[in-house]
Amino acid sequence: MRQSTLFTKTRREAPKDEVSKNAILLTRAGFIHKEMAGVYSYLPLGLRVLKKIESIVREEMNAIGGQELILTALQKKEVWEKVGRWNDEVVDVWFKTKLKDNVELGLGFTHDEELVNLLTEYIASYKDLPIYPYQIQTKFRNELRAKSGIVRGREFLMKDLYSFNRTEEEQNEFYERVKKAYMNVFGRCGIGDKTYFTLADGSTFSKYSHEFQTVSEAGEDIIYITDEDKKEAINKELGEKDGKEFKSIEVGNIFKQGTKYTEPFDLLYQDEDGKQKPVLMGGYGIGVTRLMGTVVEVLSDEKGIVWPKEIAPFQVHLISLPQKTVFWADEIYKTLQVKNIEVLYDDRDLRAGEKFADADLIGIPTRVIVGDKALESKMLEVKDRASGETKEMTLESLTNELI
Amino acid sequence: MRQSTLFTKTRREAPKDEVSKNAILLTRAGFIHKEMAGVYSYLPLGLRVLKKIESIVREEMNAIGGQELILTALQKKEVWEKVGRWNDEVVDVWFKTKLKDNVELGLGFTHDEELVNLLTEYIASYKDLPIYPYQIQTKFRNELRAKSGIVRGREFLMKDLYSFNRTEEEQNEFYERVKKAYMNVFGRCGIGDKTYFTLADGSTFSKYSHEFQTVSEAGEDIIYITDEDKKEAINKELGEKDGKEFKSIEVGNIFKQGTKYTEPFDLLYQDEDGKQKPVLMGGYGIGVTRLMGTVVEVLSDEKGIVWPKEIAPFQVHLISLPQKTVFWADEIYKTLQVKNIEVLYDDRDLRAGEKFADADLIGIPTRVIVGDKALESKMLEVKDRASGETKEMTLESLTNELI
Repeated sequence: MRQSTLFTKTRREAPKDEVSKNAILLTRAGFIHKEMAGVYSYLPLGLRVLKKIESIVREEMNAIGGQELILTALQKKEVWEKVGRWNDEVVDVWFKTKLKDNVELGLGFTHDEELVNLLTEYIASYKDLPIYPYQIQTKFRNELRAKSGIVRGREFLMKDLYSFNRTEEEQNEFYERVKKAYMNVFGRCGIGDKTYFTLADGSTFSKYSHEFQTVSEAGEDIIYITDEDKKEAINKELGEKDGKEFKSIEVGNIFKQGTKYTEPFDLLYQDEDGKQKPVLMGGYGIGVTRLMGTVVEVLSDEKGIVWPKEIAPFQVHLISLPQKTVFWADEIYKTLQVKNIEVLYDDRDLRAGEKFADADLIGIPTRVIVGDKALESKMLEVKDRASGETKEMTLESLTNELI
Repeated sequence: MRQSTLFTKTRREAPKDEVSKNAILLTRAGFIHKEMAGVYSYLPLGLRVLKKIESIVREEMNAIGGQELILTALQKKEVWEKVGRWNDEVVDVWFKTKLKDNVELGLGFTHDEELVNLLTEYIASYKDLPIYPYQIQTKFRNELRAKSGIVRGREFLMKDLYSFNRTEEEQNEFYERVKKAYMNVFGRCGIGDKTYFTLADGSTFSKYSHEFQTVSEAGEDIIYITDEDKKEAINKELGEKDGKEFKSIEVGNIFKQGTKYTEPFDLLYQDEDGKQKPVLMGGYGIGVTRLMGTVVEVLSDEKGIVWPKEIAPFQVHLISLPQKTVFWADEIYKTLQVKNIEVLYDDRDLRAGEKFADADLIGIPTRVIVGDKALESKMLEVKDRASGETKEMTLESLTNELI
């Protein structure tokens, strides 16, 4: 894409009330736009990153047997009353609204009830199980405060996967598969080395749950790392430990819900012996927009964002300097496009310093500068955003490295 | 995908209060699930169709210079008061809700105001124009009645594209490009021959607007076809004509908004001579879920849905009959997958009649039956869902035809 046609521009300042690093950098670089606290639009660059994270999550969920569907934001009161979660005193993050005839509706902050209710129409026998439906969908949570940018939103994108199993053994086996899939997701998003599988408080049906915690100063949780090699930790909510404390962001969680939701909805199956049994349920979440925010919190430096390769909006930031190199830069742009390498081409008539500062802020992994010298020697200056290292390469060796 | 693992099943009946053909067929075939009137979840088969329609729309919008972004559902009162559209007496489809501190919010039924407000931060000069942002996003409309299935939803997916131009000539040129792109979308979705470019009522800033109307008994509009070859029509709202009347569904609309939104928000640009001028705006909508419903209304027959190739959930419905052919059917399944042909493989242990009835209802374009005879002659029975025609083919000639 030619940067001259991109309607967003970098900005020197984010809105004054913005305090989180992720929101400040993403706003300044033109990835997001704040509509109100905790509610952000995703501009072209931001949407490209979000779609890449979505694709990674989708691939990893499909690989462990997930079936994608999409549930609704509008929720019926009756469905939520079954497990007692309609009441605002029980769930304090509801946004509620009304139909024309004054029937009350809620905006989904999660989807356990809606999904279990739906599945009663499809599950009857042991032959219908196990199943692993998931969605990547917008959730609404009426947070009292929302000062963490896209790390804690009032309107945000979440992947929620659910397991429906016949036996604990079957569920445990899937739980292990999800653990691996989640670590793949965080690894591919560039924060694998800072993310820990963390023991945390359970719910009614299991003593413990597990969280995926990414060490970051912006975190609202505190963990103790118990095994650095195995990437294991324990949440401070389970009791204090000596050992160093780390602030961390919860990027995912997985937990067993037993029959908490399936029993009230009569989600039963007939086993091989003709007996009716309640289905065992599990829930597995990843905050997709939160994950994007966490990557920015963890990987940015004083100059701007540093995107990992798999989720960068483009692979290459091509910069023409000065005007007389434009003809050759145009050729390189075409060559990279033909080879299906995603390029943001800074073809704007600006000073070198401005272009470099913008490129640092936007954070595309590989920068290619077509400068004066290039005209003679046909060598391109190639800079790695993360390490800052620069080398000279021919176009051919560059494309070979990138494909 | 193996049909035995798909958690949805076909159903003999849709919910009793369901009157529209699209909702009845899509529910019975397991594509959608009704949460309440006008609010539907998209199950795995349904989501596959929706994603394909989305991809077509995205490709066509990108091809005419569209830049994708995604705006928010939650909307601020102040932004909508600027053009006087916050009031429920002016806009009677608002869903409204509240933050914890009682600040009122709306759920976006469209996004003109939010987008224009956002763009004031990015547009200043004639050099920043033209731009063509669009999104594929969930809209909320508090319809008094919602009896048309996914053709008129309270929560639905829409593609809304907006043009921001400097001059009428520039806008007109883009308007023509959108017309062609829209006809491409409807053509690729299989309803091109029944869709007419229709003159309709305008708004404050232009005498006329244009709609894309698909002839269907389920339609709420009435059109007169004025030129069958050019696919042109006129909406009855502009006056009665002799000529036959056709009921039709509005699958898209395009209109010029002039400076109706840009002036109240001071979305101005400085022209080449340094003068401040308001930006000219245009709006271009396609109801993505409505389009899916329209395809079902128009192309289904008495046995079920008939998906056009480009938006079918799978290209091939592979059916093994009887049990002894399973080994060979498994082989065919693998071969088709290796060749990247999307297959739904009915590997269930059911009678032939049930499998065929399901396949007719689900509506995948090409059915491949691995029957008794196939074991000897290695010939497959291949049936075209739309025409009902059957032919015998080798696996090799089938795959060559499908790739």
